Amino acid sequence: MTRNFRALLEAKWNEGKFVCVGLDTDPRKIPPSLLDRYRDSHDPVGDAMYAFNRAIIVATSDLVLAYKPNSAFYEREGVSGWGALRRTCEFTRSHTPHTPIVLDIKRGDIGNTNEGYVHAAFTEMEADAVTVSPYLGSEALKPFLEMKDKGVIVICRTSNKGAGEFQDLPVQTDWAPDGTIPLYQYVAMKVAKDWDENNNCAVVVGATYPGELAEVRRIVGDLPILIPGIGAQGGDVEATVKAGKDSNGKGMIINVSRSVLYASSGEDFAEAARAEVERVDALIRAVLKEEVAV
Amino acid sequence: MTRNFRALLEAKWNEGKFVCVGLDTDPRKIPPSLLDRYRDSHDPVGDAMYAFNRAIIVATSDLVLAYKPNSAFYEREGVSGWGALRRTCEFTRSHTPHTPIVLDIKRGDIGNTNEGYVHAAFTEMEADAVTVSPYLGSEALKPFLEMKDKGVIVICRTSNKGAGEFQDLPVQTDWAPDGTIPLYQYVAMKVAKDWDENNNCAVVVGATYPGELAEVRRIVGDLPILIPGIGAQGGDVEATVKAGKDSNGKGMIINVSRSVLYASSGEDFAEAARAEVERVDALIRAVLKEEVAV
Repeated sequence: MTRNFRALLEAKWNEGKFVCVGLDTDPRKIPPSLLDRYRDSHDPVGDAMYAFNRAIIVATSDLVLAYKPNSAFYEREGVSGWGALRRTCEFTRSHTPHTPIVLDIKRGDIGNTNEGYVHAAFTEMEADAVTVSPYLGSEALKPFLEMKDKGVIVICRTSNKGAGEFQDLPVQTDWAPDGTIPLYQYVAMKVAKDWDENNNCAVVVGATYPGELAEVRRIVGDLPILIPGIGAQGGDVEATVKAGKDSNGKGMIINVSRSVLYASSGEDFAEAARAEVERVDALIRAVLKEEVAV
Repeated sequence: MTRNFRALLEAKWNEGKFVCVGLDTDPRKIPPSLLDRYRDSHDPVGDAMYAFNRAIIVATSDLVLAYKPNSAFYEREGVSGWGALRRTCEFTRSHTPHTPIVLDIKRGDIGNTNEGYVHAAFTEMEADAVTVSPYLGSEALKPFLEMKDKGVIVICRTSNKGAGEFQDLPVQTDWAPDGTIPLYQYVAMKVAKDWDENNNCAVVVGATYPGELAEVRRIVGDLPILIPGIGAQGGDVEATVKAGKDSNGKGMIINVSRSVLYASSGEDFAEAARAEVERVDALIRAVLKEEVAV
């Protein structure tokens, strides 16, 4: 059977899994004991990053919905980091074959150039989904959108301070009942109405803005929403689940990164990471249960 | 003296140089004779990409304003490509130390993550400037904007078909005399008015839209504009120069990629690339001369 991003997600949601672990692996935060172990290798940084990720994946794979390495942390380390990212994707697929890999690259260029990114993400790294920037439009994103079995997760309303500088701009459109609508809502509409022909689209909305998350859920129906911002960024689990769940109580990819990866800087970092995933997982399940009861 | 992107540009403009060569190096388009030469190396693709770039740089460096490798073409080849990109940046700096390197990465993430991209671009690759996406806002882009000597080139109006899907949306703002303004113009205003505190910003506007280019020039004053779209994409040199020059007849970074790199698929590819740069360079100079005469 063809490996399909949306189908992988649905299967995990049916098992009640919603936590995506963001593999934002920073060698400066890896436990010193682990760094020491690879000090004499020919690729100390790459080997330590890969070993760290492997330990996190082994400790959490039965609990998680997806893994999401963010490219920036690997690019930071040059060729070593790039190699560690490739090995991490390989390991994820062999260790936990039904867990989708979301490559968080936030790319977007003209069509001809996007073909390079498509190849990098889906052939080189064998990821199941990528994040993309909407700014160049759907014509440019075609090389991504045409990958029917791969997820295309469009940045819509981000979790950062100041996200509204452009994303909240009121834009004039026929789709707005009273004449204008914030740009991020227009992006969500475009994705849901026009871009999702292959049933492979999703959007990114930060947990730090539950009001905006609820608006986007209203717009996109049951489209998956990748929700970063829980944990270190301060997003609240209860508000996120209430605003983010779809009509079936599913549809959420709730990302946690720093609070999981760096839960402990000791030898027990992987166990501590698992405990943090368990904690967030239990919180999500409790909110969903309560919502059903209501 | 500190190496400063804007100062490097100004010095080249004073020499009458405006052509930026886009190193969009695709191993499937490299002359077969060059690929053959590295067939038995331990890194055939990386070595061939690097050798190709080196030959292009050696053949053109006395004519060009800047080199602009686009990350997608290197990422496509994984670790080999990443290594070729690093070696290309290194070679450029040693062969032609006063020629700025623009790394075309179109990145943009939350602040904490952008720090990884900043390190990758400016420490790992030692580039002089990067392209960034505006969508997450200036707060997120701070790690880039704070790099006083590095160029931050913000995507504004791109050269692709369908660029207007979001970029032309009418947005409501106090800055618009009649109530709305296209999004790309709002981006240009933001960059020129608010983001350029360190005199290190620039914007991207495609040569395929000379009307929009003229609008952006009106908005940004003498800010540098990176102008892709000449050559394979069909942008016209005369219209571009007329619309894109600043008040001193400078301010343009006119990019050519495919039409230069793949001017010949034979052994003479570097000479053919030089001839194409010379052709575009002469066209630009002729238009500028004519404009002064008028």
